[in-house]
Amino acid sequence: MSTDPRRQMFEPIEVALEELRERYLPDDRGEVADDIPELAKADPGHFGLSLVSVDGHRYRAGDTDVAFTMQSISKPFVYALALADHGLEAMLDRVGAEPSGEAYNAISLDPDTGRPDNPMINAGAIVSASLVAGAGAEERFERIRTTLSGFAGRDLALDDRVYRSEMATGDRNRALAYLMRSTGALGCPVDEAIEVYFRQCALSVTADDIATMGATLANNGENPVTGQRVIPEEVDEQVMAVMATCGMYDSSGEWLVRVGLPAKSGVAGGLMALSPAQFGIGLYSPPLDAKGNSVRAVEACRDLSADFSLHLLHRPARDTPVVSLRMPDNDEPAVLCLRGDVDFVGAEQALRSLDPVEAHWAEHPGPHELVLDLARVSSVEPVAAAMFEALAAGLAESGVRLSVADPRRRALLAELPEREAP
Amino acid sequence: MSTDPRRQMFEPIEVALEELRERYLPDDRGEVADDIPELAKADPGHFGLSLVSVDGHRYRAGDTDVAFTMQSISKPFVYALALADHGLEAMLDRVGAEPSGEAYNAISLDPDTGRPDNPMINAGAIVSASLVAGAGAEERFERIRTTLSGFAGRDLALDDRVYRSEMATGDRNRALAYLMRSTGALGCPVDEAIEVYFRQCALSVTADDIATMGATLANNGENPVTGQRVIPEEVDEQVMAVMATCGMYDSSGEWLVRVGLPAKSGVAGGLMALSPAQFGIGLYSPPLDAKGNSVRAVEACRDLSADFSLHLLHRPARDTPVVSLRMPDNDEPAVLCLRGDVDFVGAEQALRSLDPVEAHWAEHPGPHELVLDLARVSSVEPVAAAMFEALAAGLAESGVRLSVADPRRRALLAELPEREAP
Amino acid sequence: MSTDPRRQMFEPIEVALEELRERYLPDDRGEVADDIPELAKADPGHFGLSLVSVDGHRYRAGDTDVAFTMQSISKPFVYALALADHGLEAMLDRVGAEPSGEAYNAISLDPDTGRPDNPMINAGAIVSASLVAGAGAEERFERIRTTLSGFAGRDLALDDRVYRSEMATGDRNRALAYLMRSTGALGCPVDEAIEVYFRQCALSVTADDIATMGATLANNGENPVTGQRVIPEEVDEQVMAVMATCGMYDSSGEWLVRVGLPAKSGVAGGLMALSPAQFGIGLYSPPLDAKGNSVRAVEACRDLSADFSLHLLHRPARDTPVVSLRMPDNDEPAVLCLRGDVDFVGAEQALRSLDPVEAHWAEHPGPHELVLDLARVSSVEPVAAAMFEALAAGLAESGVRLSVADPRRRALLAELPEREAP
Amino acid sequence: MSTDPRRQMFEPIEVALEELRERYLPDDRGEVADDIPELAKADPGHFGLSLVSVDGHRYRAGDTDVAFTMQSISKPFVYALALADHGLEAMLDRVGAEPSGEAYNAISLDPDTGRPDNPMINAGAIVSASLVAGAGAEERFERIRTTLSGFAGRDLALDDRVYRSEMATGDRNRALAYLMRSTGALGCPVDEAIEVYFRQCALSVTADDIATMGATLANNGENPVTGQRVIPEEVDEQVMAVMATCGMYDSSGEWLVRVGLPAKSGVAGGLMALSPAQFGIGLYSPPLDAKGNSVRAVEACRDLSADFSLHLLHRPARDTPVVSLRMPDNDEPAVLCLRGDVDFVGAEQALRSLDPVEAHWAEHPGPHELVLDLARVSSVEPVAAAMFEALAAGLAESGVRLSVADPRRRALLAELPEREAP
Repeated sequence: MSTDPRRQMFEPIEVALEELRERYLPDDRGEVADDIPELAKADPGHFGLSLVSVDGHRYRAGDTDVAFTMQSISKPFVYALALADHGLEAMLDRVGAEPSGEAYNAISLDPDTGRPDNPMINAGAIVSASLVAGAGAEERFERIRTTLSGFAGRDLALDDRVYRSEMATGDRNRALAYLMRSTGALGCPVDEAIEVYFRQCALSVTADDIATMGATLANNGENPVTGQRVIPEEVDEQVMAVMATCGMYDSSGEWLVRVGLPAKSGVAGGLMALSPAQFGIGLYSPPLDAKGNSVRAVEACRDLSADFSLHLLHRPARDTPVVSLRMPDNDEPAVLCLRGDVDFVGAEQALRSLDPVEAHWAEHPGPHELVLDLARVSSVEPVAAAMFEALAAGLAESGVRLSVADPRRRALLAELPEREAP
Repeated sequence: MSTDPRRQMFEPIEVALEELRERYLPDDRGEVADDIPELAKADPGHFGLSLVSVDGHRYRAGDTDVAFTMQSISKPFVYALALADHGLEAMLDRVGAEPSGEAYNAISLDPDTGRPDNPMINAGAIVSASLVAGAGAEERFERIRTTLSGFAGRDLALDDRVYRSEMATGDRNRALAYLMRSTGALGCPVDEAIEVYFRQCALSVTADDIATMGATLANNGENPVTGQRVIPEEVDEQVMAVMATCGMYDSSGEWLVRVGLPAKSGVAGGLMALSPAQFGIGLYSPPLDAKGNSVRAVEACRDLSADFSLHLLHRPARDTPVVSLRMPDNDEPAVLCLRGDVDFVGAEQALRSLDPVEAHWAEHPGPHELVLDLARVSSVEPVAAAMFEALAAGLAESGVRLSVADPRRRALLAELPEREAP
Repeated sequence: MSTDPRRQMFEPIEVALEELRERYLPDDRGEVADDIPELAKADPGHFGLSLVSVDGHRYRAGDTDVAFTMQSISKPFVYALALADHGLEAMLDRVGAEPSGEAYNAISLDPDTGRPDNPMINAGAIVSASLVAGAGAEERFERIRTTLSGFAGRDLALDDRVYRSEMATGDRNRALAYLMRSTGALGCPVDEAIEVYFRQCALSVTADDIATMGATLANNGENPVTGQRVIPEEVDEQVMAVMATCGMYDSSGEWLVRVGLPAKSGVAGGLMALSPAQFGIGLYSPPLDAKGNSVRAVEACRDLSADFSLHLLHRPARDTPVVSLRMPDNDEPAVLCLRGDVDFVGAEQALRSLDPVEAHWAEHPGPHELVLDLARVSSVEPVAAAMFEALAAGLAESGVRLSVADPRRRALLAELPEREAP
Repeated sequence: MSTDPRRQMFEPIEVALEELRERYLPDDRGEVADDIPELAKADPGHFGLSLVSVDGHRYRAGDTDVAFTMQSISKPFVYALALADHGLEAMLDRVGAEPSGEAYNAISLDPDTGRPDNPMINAGAIVSASLVAGAGAEERFERIRTTLSGFAGRDLALDDRVYRSEMATGDRNRALAYLMRSTGALGCPVDEAIEVYFRQCALSVTADDIATMGATLANNGENPVTGQRVIPEEVDEQVMAVMATCGMYDSSGEWLVRVGLPAKSGVAGGLMALSPAQFGIGLYSPPLDAKGNSVRAVEACRDLSADFSLHLLHRPARDTPVVSLRMPDNDEPAVLCLRGDVDFVGAEQALRSLDPVEAHWAEHPGPHELVLDLARVSSVEPVAAAMFEALAAGLAESGVRLSVADPRRRALLAELPEREAP
């Protein structure tokens, strides 16, 4: 265990990853997957952890550059691409978003329509892949490969031996595809659907890659390393929501309670998790537990979430007043100044703080003026921006002149006159 | 529809609630529940919306003071109480946390142990209630009533007629209880378990009450109106996580994707939702859709989430530099100044920004000193506090003097010498 | 093993039963039921076999007079009573006749109506008992007790200790009853239904008793020992048909293939089986296999069926000509003489054999006469009787005089002139 | 409706078939199957009924020579062939014999082993076909075709257009095969299994053919028209037993209660039923009910069973004394004479009737002699033959001379001295 005080001090994340690696490397529980023969060749001693923050900085420990195949980790990304192609409503008609409480290869199809329960089980992933726009398997897979490369920030390639191995043994997935084909839930030929699906599963990545991919999801769909927007922000939220409820198969609910990070694991030993607006993390260790999740990766991810309080539902309250008001005085306009992150509560406090100004205006003749000073805010949440827009509209109607100091255009009040922060 | 510019401007939330009420009041789809005869007497025209922010401010529209019974809305709160009594691990042994993809009254018990899938279906709620500490039904219910009153901020009372009506017609719940009793999943006598459960369901509330209850969950378990801590913060997160995956029964997954607010509905027409660290909302309208959720409440909640971008996974990126550094100069110490909300990215940027300071110290003889100025931060997330603690420990070991300006003790570095912000 | 040649010779059935007892008494697999505490007191060494033929003769070996409770063996008999009260169509509306492929205590209710799959699982048995005509539990049970006593040929009594033990532990059955009550599948109060059901299960019998009960079923519903008609013939066939497909729970199909005898087992260790029109058999040995069937009873029943070729679908062909014809000659009428059992094939052969007579009549002036000689037939199957009635009607219309020698009125051609067998 | 008294009289079966045809031809409920496009071309007005007795006589009405494909009617025959190849135990390891209570195309596989529930659902039929001995699809199908031709008594041919149509649309069956392949339940390649299965389904038959096939099953596996033994007697019983519990899919139980004839229907409109030891019947009418059974065929089969009392469990009692005894007198031996069908009851009565003979022998010196006169019996059931063999062995050991008059060797006491019937 690292005891270098300088690293502890300045590189606490990297040190934490190293400690997790040292803690769980000796844990030799689990078995390397062997239902796909090629996967059985993986080295059970490999263990890598990679973390990429939403500002693009990377931390790592261990075997983060060992190649393995994505397998099910590909599912949220391909679903994202299909969502971007068709929109949520059209996709929900074809693939549900309900956790099934069942294993990854469960049949879990709607008894009437054959619609798979969600895109994180194999059945739903096969349909999702078939819905990616493109003429034929080749073009469709190339779009998938390109998009996933965008998430990873580098050109991903197929592991041909694993692909061939899956094609030779994937009878259950063929069964699911034929079942769905027979009900109309799968619209393209089975061979084509299966080929695309097995190819996406056989894309070769490293722990570093899936950390970047997770960071891209955490960063609203924009790759924080390359700066490329890979999917629209709206799609990104939908994908994270589905990962939150369905990402860990039949232990998704317990995972969200205990760990609280949207995540997706793959049978080759990879595990990708993310903390929205904070970072993505990629873990790799081949031995799997009975549910098909990497033993070491799961343990490390749990500890990391607990040690750093990363739970999705952990939202510490903010009680610092972020609002200050200068009352109008003679010719000086009223100034409403905010700082930090302006969310719902901040915006409502800001609006409430204007009560005495409103009273003052009522008693004094105009013209009235209000300066909204957002120069020092870190961010303005959309709910707050909407509230400020309502304020602006009301002031305009009342004949009050509003000027906004918002050099970084946080509040998106572009049509308003800009002025210097006082 | 309200067109008063003053209200639009200064009371956008209340106006939004009123608009939602006007938009959906004419929607006369759905049927008032009639399986419990007493519920059938509800007025289908009632529609109330109440919102309470985590700073305790309330907004409302319509029939927010009409009394109705909690029914299933009681489930997360009673589960919270049982969690507080036993801890997560012990509770997971008795009640799972997996969405079942099934209706509220589904059997959904583990085939081997009889353990119910989750505490939001009736079976899991009955077991949860039976696990609340207390000698006998009377004492157990009194603890439940007291705790739920704490969430609501006022003394809640039983609607005795509804309670008797449920007792007379609740055969399916008795069946679930006997099933679980036969496998050992339910440890107390069926009559006792059912009595407590039907009582909690028959607690009388208003839309205002359930808004406060939701706001208490959103505020980490502390009632923002009364200031009372009702449940521990840790329990609060666990409850919100279970609501996120299981709160809306067999449409929980789709609800999280579309609406993105942890929520719970009741068959009397209530719907409670919340946005963590922002607010709780209570809606009431008796006509139910086929899944047993209030038609108008669901529609209004969807729109509210969409209009105000409240989705749980919607986390806009913050790119404002929140860190500024003054290099050490002669006798002057280095000063690291942060503002706004300091999260993981903020803390890691802060630590990285110290690289030139470290280089400077390496070239200049000591003593060295660093001032960490947190006077203007709005909040410090636990992950960031942990990183600062690692920094402090490292500096101490290296002989660097650290002083922290943290007047509101955000970083919890209590043992460090305090000094004025420079 | 018995080697007395006289007994082997004249009492082969009794010897066979004794041999089966000796063969399987040492088999100490299985466990005495303990979910009902009182049952756990049974002596695992008891083993009795009793066989009653449809002419009322009894054969026995071992502990055939040890008392035990009927448990599920009561189900077909109570179902028979309810069928007699309501008829098949009305009963099928309330209790299905489909094997469920599930265990005896499975829920197996129709998802829409709550109708239990069949009357041999607990759910279906509870509904069947509730449908027995009678005002209240007391009267209903008394009718059940009386009818089952009719099957057994002696007055059956309740084992009060077992009844109380079941009442104290029967939570799963209460659960089933409440479930069905909640859907309307069960029409009477749960307490009443459960009381009647547990009482019928606690009726005390011996292996001798259940052998007589099985023989009564095998004898078309008429007790071959007492001569009492207990249920109508039609009901009897329906009950045997349901036993054939559903009697052995989730191994009913395999039982019918392997053993081929309609059967019903009880958790106290009893097993009743029957060979239609031949005999009933009662076995008793408390240790049960994993499916709840008596280990020794199942083995002995299999061997008995195999050794004596008793399989329901084993119907050896009969190729002996059973028809002889004397052509009309001068004043002598044509005589059609049959012997043995006249079934479909016999009747059709008889009719076909009349072709030359018909040709002869066509060529010779009448009056024509036919004598149908049934004096030596053992039985006339209904299908054959119907064919003879068609013959009689046709002859009458054609002016042919028919006389029947049928001293035992087998062909039920009562309206025809009787004459001496020629 | 036929009113010709001559036909009513001498041809009641043919008349009954004609009446059933007239009764149900106007019933235009149901839809011709269209999931296999080629089947949709069938003429909905076709309706044929054919009955073949176990002595090989045929009766018919309507369109009994219209060709249609066997579809699921092939299942019991292919299962019979696989049973003949492997024996019951080996087959039960691969395909269960439990009714599943589910539709014909249900998945119904054992959750652990993937073993299909029974051979009458598609999954079980596909495995059964794959187990027919033979190297490759071609040889395996040729054995199937030859055996089914043996059942039908003529060379059956493939309907190539239907076969191609099924191959083009049979995705659900491919799904089932891949599912079973993935668990090891299916041992041969999917394409091969599916090809054989679709071919057997596409064998072209007429109502006359399936009547003969049913009659062969009813006649213990020997074709009553051609005299060819097609399958062993033991296999024949096993197949009829499985048809009795599983033949009509999810209404098998109700069918056995109501109609009481082992039966199998096919989606092309065919229905085969049989009365063991009596006859087979083939019906054809394309319009199907919601469960996939021919509407007219089901109705006609129900009426036929009711009108002619053909229910499998309908076994009228035989009370005619079939035994007569002549006491030993001076030099004359004792003579035990039986007639009619000797079953269990007959044999036990015969043995009991010897009690006074035994007493007489005990009082009189030997040599003793017994003549067993079976010359006039129609049949001796195996159970009775076994009892006579025990008698013979006992007599031999006691020094009594036994001679048997059994010209047709019914009792199989071949080693005993034969003598003339007295």
